[in-house]
Amino acid sequence: MERTVFFISDGTAITAEVLGHAVLSQFPVDFNQYTIPFVENTLKAQEVCQQIDGVYEKTGQRPIVFYSIVSPDIRAIIEKSHGYCQNIVHTLVTPLEQELGVAPIPAAHRIHGLTASNLTKYDARIAAIDYALAHDDGISLRNLEDAQVILLGVSRCGKTPTSLYLAMQFGIRAANYPFTSDDMDNLLLPPALKPFHSKLFGLTISPERLSAIRQERRENSRYASLRQCRIEVTEVEALYRKHNIRFLNSTNYSVEEISTKLLDILGMTRRMY
Amino acid sequence: MERTVFFISDGTAITAEVLGHAVLSQFPVDFNQYTIPFVENTLKAQEVCQQIDGVYEKTGQRPIVFYSIVSPDIRAIIEKSHGYCQNIVHTLVTPLEQELGVAPIPAAHRIHGLTASNLTKYDARIAAIDYALAHDDGISLRNLEDAQVILLGVSRCGKTPTSLYLAMQFGIRAANYPFTSDDMDNLLLPPALKPFHSKLFGLTISPERLSAIRQERRENSRYASLRQCRIEVTEVEALYRKHNIRFLNSTNYSVEEISTKLLDILGMTRRMY
Repeated sequence: MERTVFFISDGTAITAEVLGHAVLSQFPVDFNQYTIPFVENTLKAQEVCQQIDGVYEKTGQRPIVFYSIVSPDIRAIIEKSHGYCQNIVHTLVTPLEQELGVAPIPAAHRIHGLTASNLTKYDARIAAIDYALAHDDGISLRNLEDAQVILLGVSRCGKTPTSLYLAMQFGIRAANYPFTSDDMDNLLLPPALKPFHSKLFGLTISPERLSAIRQERRENSRYASLRQCRIEVTEVEALYRKHNIRFLNSTNYSVEEISTKLLDILGMTRRMY
Repeated sequence: MERTVFFISDGTAITAEVLGHAVLSQFPVDFNQYTIPFVENTLKAQEVCQQIDGVYEKTGQRPIVFYSIVSPDIRAIIEKSHGYCQNIVHTLVTPLEQELGVAPIPAAHRIHGLTASNLTKYDARIAAIDYALAHDDGISLRNLEDAQVILLGVSRCGKTPTSLYLAMQFGIRAANYPFTSDDMDNLLLPPALKPFHSKLFGLTISPERLSAIRQERRENSRYASLRQCRIEVTEVEALYRKHNIRFLNSTNYSVEEISTKLLDILGMTRRMY
């Protein structure tokens, strides 16, 4: 039987979701998950409490409640419910208080919020998204000196989502450049990219996965054929090796993994947002 | 004095970072933060252990170590360091084991990874990014029936980053449509959007913040002038009210907050990735 889980927060609930997801993934149990963000007043908290109790009455099992709420009044209402309530951030804050020898200040904790102190960083992150869009798919080879990474690869190997994730999560300016089927007869590194060797990062992918992805886009085309995918992958990998371009096979990796591996391989410092 | 913090993981370390960031933000202390992902073997773990001990010897203070590692052998090496080590996921897993009455299975826990079981969901998320790009800035008004949300707003009020975040984080297909200065004399809801009223969501912003953002793009232009920004904001807000389009003022909100508030206001279920 499914167990019901609530992720509850006075903010976006993103932290509660990310951590809760990590915790629940350790158990061989099916979970029925609900996220309730912006529980910012006692009225909303009472509604949520009733919702939790409703599940308890219906299923006879205490719902699991992962919550992160600053106001003691609002917290008290959630804790009065019949849920199994875990104050996720608090659980780690308490032991740290002793280690740091400093009391926590549980004020307006907008982890994913916009505040005067992080506005500059936030604007830089939005600028990185603009940069990724302006330099997506080789649209523009201008201002490449402003790029922190230049991704290379064949069509549909993951360049665009990776560029956007690097911008969104880490504020990193990534350009990307595609090699097309027309390039394959005599594959060369474009002269415009040569001055930026230290920023170049290649993606590759298994021909089988590439063909499956391309089939979704243009069914039964030459573009999506396994033969064509094999040719393109072989050629770009040879190019990467010839020019000593660091590269990664993205076949079994998510955009989060590709991005963090890239930063690790290029030795780039991760900034947090 | 700054205290050093390490976020260490055998995966992307995104969970460790997100949670660690939430915990540290509660303390009025400056932290010097390092993220070390993909600590997947004992050799790498020994290097990390030396790095932690190096900081301890240099500063005389135990570095704070937030880690999430499945292998007991690798974990043991990190725990032998002079850091103050907190096994972040484990701290919440242990009490939950009793509540669920089921032992955890700490196998290959690639929270942000690509596995056979989540490949379809992952592909849907990548498709949502493709959709957002193909329907960014009113480029295409075709296939709007496939959109889950259609964002409206003036230039630079946050439509594009929000569309991309909705796709990246939640796999939601969002189109966006810009109102330009040319539209302002007689602002109308485009006929192509009318059939999709339930999906429409307006963004607005304070004229001052809008003008500041536009100054970065085109300094001292009419486009960036406070006067022009005031006109555009007044007009679009009147349009939203006239057509009963739900809307949000994005001035003080991050893209995470705009996205999660939008889902909350539209009553859309959040899916997790």
